[in-house]
Amino acid sequence: MSKKMNDSNSKLAIAVVGLGNIGKFAIEAVQASEDMYCAGVVRRQAKEGERLNDFDLPVVDAIEKLGHVDVALLCVPSRQVRAQAEFYLAKGINTVDSFDIHEDILELKTSLTEVAQKHGKVAVVASGWDPGTDSMMRAMMLIMAPKGITSTNFGPGMSMGHSVAAKSIPGVKDALSMTIPLGTGIHRRMVYIELDDGANESEVIRAIKADSYFSTSETHIKVVDDINALKDMGHGVQMLHKGVSGATHNQQFMFDMRINNPALTSQIMVSAARASVRQQAGAYTMIEIPPVDYLAGCRSDWIKKLV
Amino acid sequence: MSKKMNDSNSKLAIAVVGLGNIGKFAIEAVQASEDMYCAGVVRRQAKEGERLNDFDLPVVDAIEKLGHVDVALLCVPSRQVRAQAEFYLAKGINTVDSFDIHEDILELKTSLTEVAQKHGKVAVVASGWDPGTDSMMRAMMLIMAPKGITSTNFGPGMSMGHSVAAKSIPGVKDALSMTIPLGTGIHRRMVYIELDDGANESEVIRAIKADSYFSTSETHIKVVDDINALKDMGHGVQMLHKGVSGATHNQQFMFDMRINNPALTSQIMVSAARASVRQQAGAYTMIEIPPVDYLAGCRSDWIKKLV
Repeated sequence: MSKKMNDSNSKLAIAVVGLGNIGKFAIEAVQASEDMYCAGVVRRQAKEGERLNDFDLPVVDAIEKLGHVDVALLCVPSRQVRAQAEFYLAKGINTVDSFDIHEDILELKTSLTEVAQKHGKVAVVASGWDPGTDSMMRAMMLIMAPKGITSTNFGPGMSMGHSVAAKSIPGVKDALSMTIPLGTGIHRRMVYIELDDGANESEVIRAIKADSYFSTSETHIKVVDDINALKDMGHGVQMLHKGVSGATHNQQFMFDMRINNPALTSQIMVSAARASVRQQAGAYTMIEIPPVDYLAGCRSDWIKKLV
Repeated sequence: MSKKMNDSNSKLAIAVVGLGNIGKFAIEAVQASEDMYCAGVVRRQAKEGERLNDFDLPVVDAIEKLGHVDVALLCVPSRQVRAQAEFYLAKGINTVDSFDIHEDILELKTSLTEVAQKHGKVAVVASGWDPGTDSMMRAMMLIMAPKGITSTNFGPGMSMGHSVAAKSIPGVKDALSMTIPLGTGIHRRMVYIELDDGANESEVIRAIKADSYFSTSETHIKVVDDINALKDMGHGVQMLHKGVSGATHNQQFMFDMRINNPALTSQIMVSAARASVRQQAGAYTMIEIPPVDYLAGCRSDWIKKLV
C-alpha cells in the first residue's frame, strides 16, 4: 500500500518546485484545496533545516527529503521545464508546468510522453491561462461554431517577457511593459522605464523601439521615477469568436476575465495536479483532459451540480 | 474490416433521428463537416422511398435501411431519449442526444452506461448548450477559481417549455414565452399570447400567472394578433463567475453568447458525435470528454493551433 493511501486521509501530496511569484501563490492554492496538502518546497539553494514560516513548510534541496510526493508543481522558468519534468517523472512523480512558449509545446508534450510512459506517470504541460484554460476556451468556441475567426485580446496587464526585454536595454534601470488590447488580437505596448543616472533618454527610447520584442507593435515609452510604484499583478483577456454553426452564420461568443495573474496561473496548475492522477500514463496539454477531472471530489456530484 | 473503413474515405456515417427544428439543422451541420456524411433521416412516419429533397437524403422508418451507421443523432423530445438511445446502442450504433431535464441527467447517464458497455458502444448525453457547453463552461470557471458564485443568465430568447405551457391554457390559441435575464440568475418571463375567439382576456392571464411554470417568476403577459410574426430563434447566455483562486479573491470571469438556438444545439450534437467514436464504451456527459476530442482532424494539429 502506498504512503498516499495511509496518511492525510488519502490527500494528494504536492511539492512546489521553485519559490518565485507562481511558487508562492501555488502554495496558497494547494493549501486552499481540501483534497491535497503541500509537502514542502524544493529549491536548489535551500539550506539545511530551512523552513518557510509564512506557510509552516520545509524548504529542501532534494524532493526525497519531503517523503512521499504525488505531484511536483514546476514553478520554474519555461526554459527549465523540460529538464525538471524529466527529472521528476524519472523519480515516479507526476509533473505539472506552465510552460508558455507556444511554438514549442507540441515538442515538449511529445518528448515528455515518452518519459512519462516509461515511468508510468503523468505530465500536464502548458497548464496556465494562456496556454492553458484559454486554449480550452478556443477549443470550446470551435465545438460550438467550427468556422470563423477567434481573436484573443490580452490585457491591460503586465507582460513579463516584454518587461525583461526592456530592462535589458543599456541605460534602463527598471522597466514595466503593459499589454493594451486594441481589439482583433492587436496590442499596444505601454513601456514604463526608470533611467540609469546619465542615460540618454532619446537613445534609450530608440533602442527599445528597435528591439524585436517591440519593433512590430505600436509601442509608447514613458520615463517615470519609480517602476515599483506602478506594479500591479492584475491582468485580463477578452476572447471573441464569430462563426458558423452548421450553415448558420453570425453566431457570437465572448469570454472575458479580469484576474490576478500569478494567482490564476498557480490555481490552474493545482487543478491540473489533481487531473494528473486521473489520467493514463503520458503527457497531456489541457485540451486533452476532460474538464471534470480538474475538479475536486466525485464525478457524479459534479454531473449533478454542473450539467 | 468495417464498412466505415471502406467507403467515403473513412468518413463517419451519421443518421439523424427525428426531423423537427433540431433535426433539420443537424443535417446541415453534418453536411458542413468534412469528416462525416449524413446517411439519412429516420422517422417513424416515413413512407416507402421517401426522400428529403432539400438535402438529397433518404427518409426511412428503420435505420437498417440506411446501410452502415456509426452514430445516431437523437433529435427527439427529451422524454423519448432514453428508449431511443437504448434501442440504437443495442444495434451497435453510438448515440448523441440533447436531453435537457437537468435533474434526470445523472440517472440517464448511469442507465445508458450499462447498455453502452454491454454493446461496446458510446452514448453522449445532454449535449446541447445548456446542459452541454454551458456545463463545460461552469467547470472551466471552477478550474480557474474553485470558490465563488456562478450565475447563468439566459436570454433574451424563446423558451420552448414555457411557450408550450402557456399555449396549453384554455383560451390561448398560440403563445410565445421569452426569457429575459435580470442578472444573478433571475429571469423575467415575457409571454405573448394570441387569444381564441371569445376567450376572456383577464381570466386567461390569471390562469397563466397561476401555472407552476410562471407562478415563481416575474411574468408579464401581452395579447397580440399574430404570434408567428414574433418568432425568432435567436437566444443568448451570459455566465458570470466571481471567485477565489487559491487565497486571491475578486477573480472575475464572464462568458457571453448570442446565437441561433437550434443551429447551436445541433452543431454541438455533431461535435459530440465525432467525440463519441474516440471514447471507450460507456455513456458520457460533455464535461467528461476532453475538449480536443470534439474537433475534426488530428490532435497534434489542434495542439499546435490552440495551445
